[in-house]
Amino acid sequence: MTWVELPDDTGFGIDNLPLGVFLGGGRVGFRHGVRIGDLVLDLFAMTDDLIHHRSTLDHFLVAGPGLWQDRREQVTEWLTDERNRVRVEPHLLPLDDVRMCRPIGVADYVDFYSSKAHAENVGRLFRLDGDPLPPNWRHLPIGYHGRAGTVEVSGTPVVRPCGQLGPPSDGLPPFGPTRRLDFEAEVGFVVGAPSEPGERVAVTDFAEHVFGVCLVDDWSARDLQAWEYVPLGPFLGKSFQTSMSPWIVPLAALEAARLPAPPRDTELLPYLRDDDARWGLDLTLEVRLNGEVVSRPLFRDMYWTPAQQLAHLTVNGAALSPGELFASGTVSGATPDRWGSLLELTADGTRPLTLADGTTRTFLEDGDVVTVTASAPGPGGSRIGFGDVTGTVLPAR
Amino acid sequence: MTWVELPDDTGFGIDNLPLGVFLGGGRVGFRHGVRIGDLVLDLFAMTDDLIHHRSTLDHFLVAGPGLWQDRREQVTEWLTDERNRVRVEPHLLPLDDVRMCRPIGVADYVDFYSSKAHAENVGRLFRLDGDPLPPNWRHLPIGYHGRAGTVEVSGTPVVRPCGQLGPPSDGLPPFGPTRRLDFEAEVGFVVGAPSEPGERVAVTDFAEHVFGVCLVDDWSARDLQAWEYVPLGPFLGKSFQTSMSPWIVPLAALEAARLPAPPRDTELLPYLRDDDARWGLDLTLEVRLNGEVVSRPLFRDMYWTPAQQLAHLTVNGAALSPGELFASGTVSGATPDRWGSLLELTADGTRPLTLADGTTRTFLEDGDVVTVTASAPGPGGSRIGFGDVTGTVLPAR
Repeated sequence: MTWVELPDDTGFGIDNLPLGVFLGGGRVGFRHGVRIGDLVLDLFAMTDDLIHHRSTLDHFLVAGPGLWQDRREQVTEWLTDERNRVRVEPHLLPLDDVRMCRPIGVADYVDFYSSKAHAENVGRLFRLDGDPLPPNWRHLPIGYHGRAGTVEVSGTPVVRPCGQLGPPSDGLPPFGPTRRLDFEAEVGFVVGAPSEPGERVAVTDFAEHVFGVCLVDDWSARDLQAWEYVPLGPFLGKSFQTSMSPWIVPLAALEAARLPAPPRDTELLPYLRDDDARWGLDLTLEVRLNGEVVSRPLFRDMYWTPAQQLAHLTVNGAALSPGELFASGTVSGATPDRWGSLLELTADGTRPLTLADGTTRTFLEDGDVVTVTASAPGPGGSRIGFGDVTGTVLPAR
Repeated sequence: MTWVELPDDTGFGIDNLPLGVFLGGGRVGFRHGVRIGDLVLDLFAMTDDLIHHRSTLDHFLVAGPGLWQDRREQVTEWLTDERNRVRVEPHLLPLDDVRMCRPIGVADYVDFYSSKAHAENVGRLFRLDGDPLPPNWRHLPIGYHGRAGTVEVSGTPVVRPCGQLGPPSDGLPPFGPTRRLDFEAEVGFVVGAPSEPGERVAVTDFAEHVFGVCLVDDWSARDLQAWEYVPLGPFLGKSFQTSMSPWIVPLAALEAARLPAPPRDTELLPYLRDDDARWGLDLTLEVRLNGEVVSRPLFRDMYWTPAQQLAHLTVNGAALSPGELFASGTVSGATPDRWGSLLELTADGTRPLTLADGTTRTFLEDGDVVTVTASAPGPGGSRIGFGDVTGTVLPAR
């Protein structure tokens, strides 16, 4: 039990304690903070450790699980033992008084494609012949590197990108603001402890390297993407912006949310076997478009777990850097109420969604606000919140 | 004329002055250095500016072309006016006494695919039907993001990566060390001055953002790549390592090497037109395998110029970060003596190369050493050198 007064049904009780980076609250410079209820605990003020006075969590995360656990225990003690109250209370700042920043340096950003329903939906729309899944899909978690430098914190507006919209009909390709701006509701994983070049990270060593979990919106311009992506993959259709939520929920807070991996169609190579690893996660996502819920994807539906993603990412010996981010790919389930992108929800714009205000959407319009939230089971029936990742679409420049 | 004694035919005369980062030479910590002949001038010692005492050039490069030019003029004066000799000479260190480091933070790494001959060669080998060029190839410089965290400085050994080697013949995909390890000889461009989110960098503003040029070897595991790359592009087939040369040759040193862009097949959208921009570059590359020249690619053969690559990279508003790197893609010309990869030189391993020692190669063997060098015309008949990017293949772990 914490002595901090918490709002009803908060997802940010004593069992969560996510980390973020903030400015403001009457404090000087960047500070690392822990969220409890609707308050932020200033970790630099509490510890006097300069590691918490940095613009990203990277310098803290690089230290690895030993320090992560020590700090978590320390914060838990501060917030549960009433005797600490006089010392701690001055450093609990109202969330409204601070500005949350991008919490990590994003040394690299990898995006996977791990929902079978999503890959099948996309395959049916774009690759019309035969099996909607590419032949490699069941054998490895497909992924690619995205643009690390344009990963922005939640709240950053999304300027509608321009580009080549498709093949030329008469000489030049059509050019202008994308007509098919989409969101992708995803779950992100923050790497803390690096690995050596040549080192493989086993499925069972996931928690030795990954600190925690956030939400990701992988904004996509479907017309740019469809024209450019053969043969080297998505580029400008994705690189204009990716948004991430500001609070990184530690894996340590997600013990009650762990699940066995879902059943697989196909036998896997040893490095991808995860029968005992239990890195399926019981996260319920909610996607809102202008405040209205348009989808409730379940992360338990994902075919490939984040532990398999990391094992695959490193099986060739590629080194991990502190503060890198990898994301699951769009979280979609078998039924339309669980689809995590407009591409799927509107069948590539052919079946418009009707919103509560009577307007319809095929893809996003200027002024639209997309918000993804999530929660997971915590210990003893509590809920673990993730906050949200949100963005407003601004007109093209 | 410089008062520094230079080796005959050095590519590092007073007109070059490339920047790098070094350790050693009896100095404390990371230092920025300028190469002259086979000596390195310690810029921190000369300026007392802490900006030159950093582990990467990024903090210097972010300042933009004004400071780049000022520093270049200052260094030129130090090395040409004999009166500076007493002050400067103690800070000229033999190249052999220092260790060159990766010169930039590599905030992002983008790899293009800008040689028409290379794209056609690859298309003929992998996509057998119809036009070897994808339909988008003539309309935009195709590119994708690579792994920034595994860009290493020249000299870093290349550990043969493991992975899935192809589709399953009987249950599981074959797995093990790559059997098709290749090099790709490329030219890299270092972004110094960032751009704002939403800002486009015009072809004519190339030199406002790009500081200079280096050599890149984009090591590739062709079997991993062929199996994984549909539909999201290369991933583990490339991400284990990319190597870059340690010296960044400033664009200011390459005025005499600038050329008009090559003739194009197809009319281009306005943002890609570069008729007056003259960012073709007259670089002659040389690829050596175990010391023997196996190819002499000419950068003037490239269809897309680096200025077009940058204009395309930013046309969707993606912001540039200081210290990011983009590379040209394999530099290949029309004839086999100008092909920049073994994939092309051996027709995907079907026509082995015979080396001077009588051995043959389809792809790289453990112990092989690949070195890429280049030079370009400088002012008054001088040559501008780039040093080299080299790597030795080590056995898989």
